[in-house]
Amino acid sequence: MKNKAVILLSGGLDSTTVLYYALSRKYECHCLIFDYGQKHKKEIKTAMKIAKMLKLNYSVIKISMPWCKSSLVDESLEIPNHKTIKKGYVPTTYVPGRNTIFLSYAISYAETIKANALFLGVNAVDFSSYPDCTPKYLQAMRNVLKALENNIEIFAPIEKMSKTQIIKLGLKLKVPYQYTWTCYNGTKRPCGTCDSCKLRAKGFKEVGIDDPAIKKSSGK
Amino acid sequence: MKNKAVILLSGGLDSTTVLYYALSRKYECHCLIFDYGQKHKKEIKTAMKIAKMLKLNYSVIKISMPWCKSSLVDESLEIPNHKTIKKGYVPTTYVPGRNTIFLSYAISYAETIKANALFLGVNAVDFSSYPDCTPKYLQAMRNVLKALENNIEIFAPIEKMSKTQIIKLGLKLKVPYQYTWTCYNGTKRPCGTCDSCKLRAKGFKEVGIDDPAIKKSSGK
Repeated sequence: MKNKAVILLSGGLDSTTVLYYALSRKYECHCLIFDYGQKHKKEIKTAMKIAKMLKLNYSVIKISMPWCKSSLVDESLEIPNHKTIKKGYVPTTYVPGRNTIFLSYAISYAETIKANALFLGVNAVDFSSYPDCTPKYLQAMRNVLKALENNIEIFAPIEKMSKTQIIKLGLKLKVPYQYTWTCYNGTKRPCGTCDSCKLRAKGFKEVGIDDPAIKKSSGK
Repeated sequence: MKNKAVILLSGGLDSTTVLYYALSRKYECHCLIFDYGQKHKKEIKTAMKIAKMLKLNYSVIKISMPWCKSSLVDESLEIPNHKTIKKGYVPTTYVPGRNTIFLSYAISYAETIKANALFLGVNAVDFSSYPDCTPKYLQAMRNVLKALENNIEIFAPIEKMSKTQIIKLGLKLKVPYQYTWTCYNGTKRPCGTCDSCKLRAKGFKEVGIDDPAIKKSSGK
């Protein structure tokens, strides 16, 4: 029997690399895409485009968190950048409980289609101030799956990689980075100044190649 | 500072008793009500009515699980009763991942309003075949909260009680059982034959009083 996996796909660099990794491991991949009220829908569209391109099953789930005060969803809050984020503090881009909500839907989906794996693009290196991206959080979620006795394993293949290592892995797996969307803002082209853009740029710089997503739109 | 709690409220006998228990412990209670595509909306309306009656904050969250094949949400499946459920099997009323999804929203809500407690009506005695109602599942979820370092505790005060014990506790706390809705079906009056109705009836019989919800509608 073929191994089946549910992939949490945001259309960003990390989760797309993880999707290509799971495919390279011969998993039959089913993508879960979340619409959690992001200020822009570019993320969702990008994720759908990638799933369609690969002819994979996917489901887009709308999540409402009326109480949510993250700058990713609240129009009244500005998205911070490296200069405005204090070390040791959780940035306002943190969406409370987000990864647990994502994972719980993934568990439901995986149990239903009898998948035996969940793949996540969680990364503990770059976003160490998010409490739901730490290794001990992931381990706790693995124990939840054990308690549910559903034989589903959580894989976070890029968990301990730097952005540079992730990009190197992705290039080997032929990830079409020109299609991925990393920016927190919904501008036509990546803003280049948000936290997420900066990390991505740093990664490509260290690998020593141009970011194909930027290259593609460099005509301005 | 007053203790704040998020209560998962379905409007049923169990969760309503738990709400009254949390109130008796002087918690400022915020109710979370889920619309997960139940065949009938009576459950949701009942929960809202109870929250309003007590003048409590509440949030109704719509959850979509397009893959879900539970008989509670799938029109093509009949809701089983005691006679049709085989021992050791998970009944078709099980909604895959449901409690994890509910809890994950509760975590998000509680983190945002800085609550320090979650109260659940989970019961391990009557529904022992649901994998997300077991003591080891709850313990695993408690460890997730520990990993998130949010100082939120999970309380499941009726976890190990029989239906009879729950009703006795509720009567002491003056729970208005006439308003609670337990039946899996959305008929005008409780069907009396589904799993959930049978358990409730057995409980009231053992306590030695009439179910006020049945009494109320006994005029037929």
